[in-house]
Parts: sequence; structure tokens; C-alpha cells
Amino acid sequence: MTTSLRALSLRALVLGAAAGGGLPQWNCGCDNCNAARAPAGDIKPQTQSSLAVSANGDQWAILNTSPDIRQQLSAHQVLYPKKVRHTPISSVLLTNGDIDHIAGLLILREKQPFTVFATETILDVISANPIFNALDRILVTFTSVQLDQSFELVSGVQATLFAVPGKVPLFMEGETVDTQLEGEQTVGVRLAGAGKTMFYIPGCAAITTRLADMLTGADCVFFDGTVYENDEMQATGTGTKTGARMGHMAMNGEHGSMAAFVPLNVERKIYVHINNTNPVWNPASAEHATIRSAGWEIAQDGLEVTL
Amino acid sequence: MTTSLRALSLRALVLGAAAGGGLPQWNCGCDNCNAARAPAGDIKPQTQSSLAVSANGDQWAILNTSPDIRQQLSAHQVLYPKKVRHTPISSVLLTNGDIDHIAGLLILREKQPFTVFATETILDVISANPIFNALDRILVTFTSVQLDQSFELVSGVQATLFAVPGKVPLFMEGETVDTQLEGEQTVGVRLAGAGKTMFYIPGCAAITTRLADMLTGADCVFFDGTVYENDEMQATGTGTKTGARMGHMAMNGEHGSMAAFVPLNVERKIYVHINNTNPVWNPASAEHATIRSAGWEIAQDGLEVTL
Repeated sequence: MTTSLRALSLRALVLGAAAGGGLPQWNCGCDNCNAARAPAGDIKPQTQSSLAVSANGDQWAILNTSPDIRQQLSAHQVLYPKKVRHTPISSVLLTNGDIDHIAGLLILREKQPFTVFATETILDVISANPIFNALDRILVTFTSVQLDQSFELVSGVQATLFAVPGKVPLFMEGETVDTQLEGEQTVGVRLAGAGKTMFYIPGCAAITTRLADMLTGADCVFFDGTVYENDEMQATGTGTKTGARMGHMAMNGEHGSMAAFVPLNVERKIYVHINNTNPVWNPASAEHATIRSAGWEIAQDGLEVTL
Repeated sequence: MTTSLRALSLRALVLGAAAGGGLPQWNCGCDNCNAARAPAGDIKPQTQSSLAVSANGDQWAILNTSPDIRQQLSAHQVLYPKKVRHTPISSVLLTNGDIDHIAGLLILREKQPFTVFATETILDVISANPIFNALDRILVTFTSVQLDQSFELVSGVQATLFAVPGKVPLFMEGETVDTQLEGEQTVGVRLAGAGKTMFYIPGCAAITTRLADMLTGADCVFFDGTVYENDEMQATGTGTKTGARMGHMAMNGEHGSMAAFVPLNVERKIYVHINNTNPVWNPASAEHATIRSAGWEIAQDGLEVTL
């Protein structure tokens, strides 16, 4: 064995800060999307939800594979191949079965070995779709992970999945939808490495007492920032669903994430999975100012956090 | 009825000129991919295979929905929404069931009405995967198209699908694979509008006598440019499959497309669906010079053809 001379740290690189649809979304002409289409505007385009994590900078795990993953991997030199067929990506972790988190697997199909970690329930979503057979099972290992049990996600980083309130993927919804399910279909991730802890929770319908306890004192939390107000899509004329109906708690309000985090003493709080309708994208908005005053950051594509 | 004052033409806009994987491909460190990652290099990045077609410039059909479609639609103002929820895209046409041609449907899922045209065989590939239920069937109409029968693809443009030699999608391959199947699984498209004819054939294993007859005298043909030589992936160390094994005829050689087109008297011949390994991407290569001398163009993202 060789001893690495590289100091370990817990590194996270935001590959995509937006929620499903991205910013701009293909069929959306809301103010944010129009601004994101303007060259050199105040609102920069953002790709769909994904985070890359590493301890040594050489091997990386991708937390959620967005449909934009080809563009995302092209944007970051640390994720370039080092020889004629190669990738620094050693594993993928999925936190739910939504399209914005699993469709990118279809891009990672070129005879490349890596491991996909997810709960059995999420792996079942994938195996129910033969299109994912494009990933050669001889090379790509699908490993089911138990909730609340730690495993090595990538060299130097331990991960633990835990249930958070949420729902099944949109394309599997039936007549009625339980948006506060707690099980294997929507999970958060605790990451531990280099003596630090980081949480990644891109979808969460409510902060339970148990979740609040887990997050207390964390060094960094990436948290569900889908909507600012629960009725935001209705108010902007972009849709009929509330945040709650989509399985996402709002940032604002008595039951919102800003209020819930106040007592948790989290060192760095960063919103991710931000919908294109969310006014916080606009740096000149009152909502942006409000979350900044509350100690929150807004993720952007390319944001790096090193603990 | 109002009379349009806009002169009609047959317009094609190349949304993506590369084959599956794109240029650069996520896990490929070949010379072309490395050059495409370099800023301001001679080889420009290219997205995956797709063509947009219109007669009036207001309503568009997308021929093949690549995984890069979000990025592609963001790049072209004519495809931007005109109001808060809108798209100029009125239809999608699929020429086979490969991931690089169907995965982009998952992006077009945001409660937007349009029509998907394809053969019954290709629609069956989609319906075998519940993930495509994300497209609300109340809004998105899947219309099966008979081979060799003309239909209106988009206002002012008639399309006719015809069988070309090919194979089933990679993710549906069994123990043995017929790479010269002629049926509904791989089709070419004849487009007619404004008194002009254009062909779009991004995958084709061989030019049959029937196909040669159809193409003779066409105003414009977009044709399968996956590989320059049949053994190109082996020669570049990027893979073990030949072009023929992938269902694609080579550009070069006695049985290649350059030779086959010589007697066909096609006005404009444009290679599309070009693999990242293909030396024609390099404008300084001998292969690039050879195909240019043979009267061929190499598509690039954003190339527009107006007939």
C-alpha cells in the first residue's frame, strides 16, 4: 500500500443547483427563465439537481444523476477522463426515483465500471424500466443500501441514508398520493469524512423531530429549496400544484425550512434543488435578501464546499 | 382562415450533430474529445443527434429527442417559449428507439401538449418503460405512423417514414443481433414542403437499391456519419464494435456512403450523427478533406438549411 501525500477533506461540488426542468425550463417563459436565457443577465442558467463528492479529489461520487449530466461533466475538469476510456466517477448515489435524479444514468452507459448505490425501492424503479439495461450489469454494480447503515460511498467518505417525508416519483403516482410517506422512496444522505459531517437532502416534505436531531450541529447541509412559498407555481401562473403536493416544503412561512433550521445550529446552510419559479434566483429580490439574512446560501452550478 | 404573409420554405436546424455520447463523451479521452474540451479549440463541442424542422418558422417538429434537448432548446431563440407556458414545438418524430433519440422525451414532460410520431414498433419500446408515463397522455398524443404513408408532421411539412437496414436498440439486444433488419425499428424520413424534398437518415446500415432510388435527385440529404472507417473504434482503442455491428455503414470504402452517393445526384449531402471517434471532426484531418472533396458537408450544432 502507498501512503497518500494528499491531505483529505470532505469536498462537495454542485453540478446542478436547479430542480427538475432546470433554469431555464424548456417550456417556461416566467421572469426567471426569460432572464436566464438573456446573455450576461443577473440570473445565470442552472442545470438540474446533482452534487459531486470526494475526499481525495481523484475519485468522485455523483449524488443524483440529472439529465444534464453530460453538460455538467464537461464543465468540470476534475471530472474529465484521464485516459482514452476512463472516469474519476467511482459511484453514483440516488436519493429518489424522480426523472431529474435518475435519467442521467442513461448517459453513463458507455462500458464504464462504477457502482450505483440506492435503496431497494429506488433500485426497483430502475429495474422496472428496460431502458436502463443500457448499463451493462457486468460493469455497473447496483448495490442496495439499508436505511441508517453506514457504507463507503467513495474513498474516504462514509454515507448513511435515512428516510425523509416525501412521495413516489411523478411517473408512478396513482389516483391518490401520500406526500408525507416516510420510507425508502425519498432519502436524505449523511456524509462523513475528514472528521466533518455534511448532509444532502434535495427533497423533503417536512422536518420531523428525528431529522431535526440528526441535523443539529452539522458542518454543512444542502437542503431542498424547491419553492419559496407553497403556492408559488399557482401565483406565477406556471402550474397548479403546491410545493406540498410535489413533496417539497417551502422555504418561507411558519412551517418552512428557514424557520425549522433556526434552532439547529448548522454551520453552513445551502439551498439546492431550486425550482425555476423560485424568486430567490433573482439576487435583487426581497426573498433573496430574506434567506441571506437568515444565514442561507443559494447554490449555483459550480459552487464548491470544502470542509 | 387567415392567409399567411410569411413565405414558406423547408427549414432544418441541426440541434445536435454528434452520435450517442456526444462530443466530448463523458468517459472518452480520445483526441477528438480532449480537443472538444479545450476552450476555443479547432474542434467544437457537439451535442447528440437531433434536427428541428419547420415551414413557417413558428411551429417546429423535433426529429429525435436527444438527452441534450434542454441545452439544445436553450441555444436557439426560435425554440423559446413565447409566454409563461408555451413551446413552438408542435411535434416530435422518432427514427429509432435508441437512447440518444428517445431519452430527451423525459425532458419534455412539463404539462405541455404536443404529438409524438413514430412507428408502432418504436412506440412499443417507449410504452414498455413506465418512466415515460411522466408524459401526460392527456396532453401528449402518441400517434403510430405506417411506413411509406405521408402525414403532416408540422404545418406545411409532409413526412414519410421508410424502413432502412438497422438493428434493435442496444438495450434490447439479445444473444444474437441482426444488424441488417429492415422493418419498423429503424426508419428514414422523407420531408416535403415548399416544393422541396429533404431526407433525414441518422442511422443506416446499408444503402439498398430501393433507398438509392428514393434519394436520387433529392434537394438535401442528412445522412448517417457515425464512423469514417468500419473498424474505427477498435483502431482508436475506444471500443470493440465495428460500425456494422452498431448498425451504421462507414463513410469510407467500397461499401461506404461516399461511394454509394456518387451516382445519386443529391444537391446537398450533409453528414449527421457523427461519433466522437470520427476523424472528420478535425478540420485539419485528411479524412475531413476527403469527404469535402466528395461534396459532403459535416453538420455542426446550429447549422441551418433553408430550401
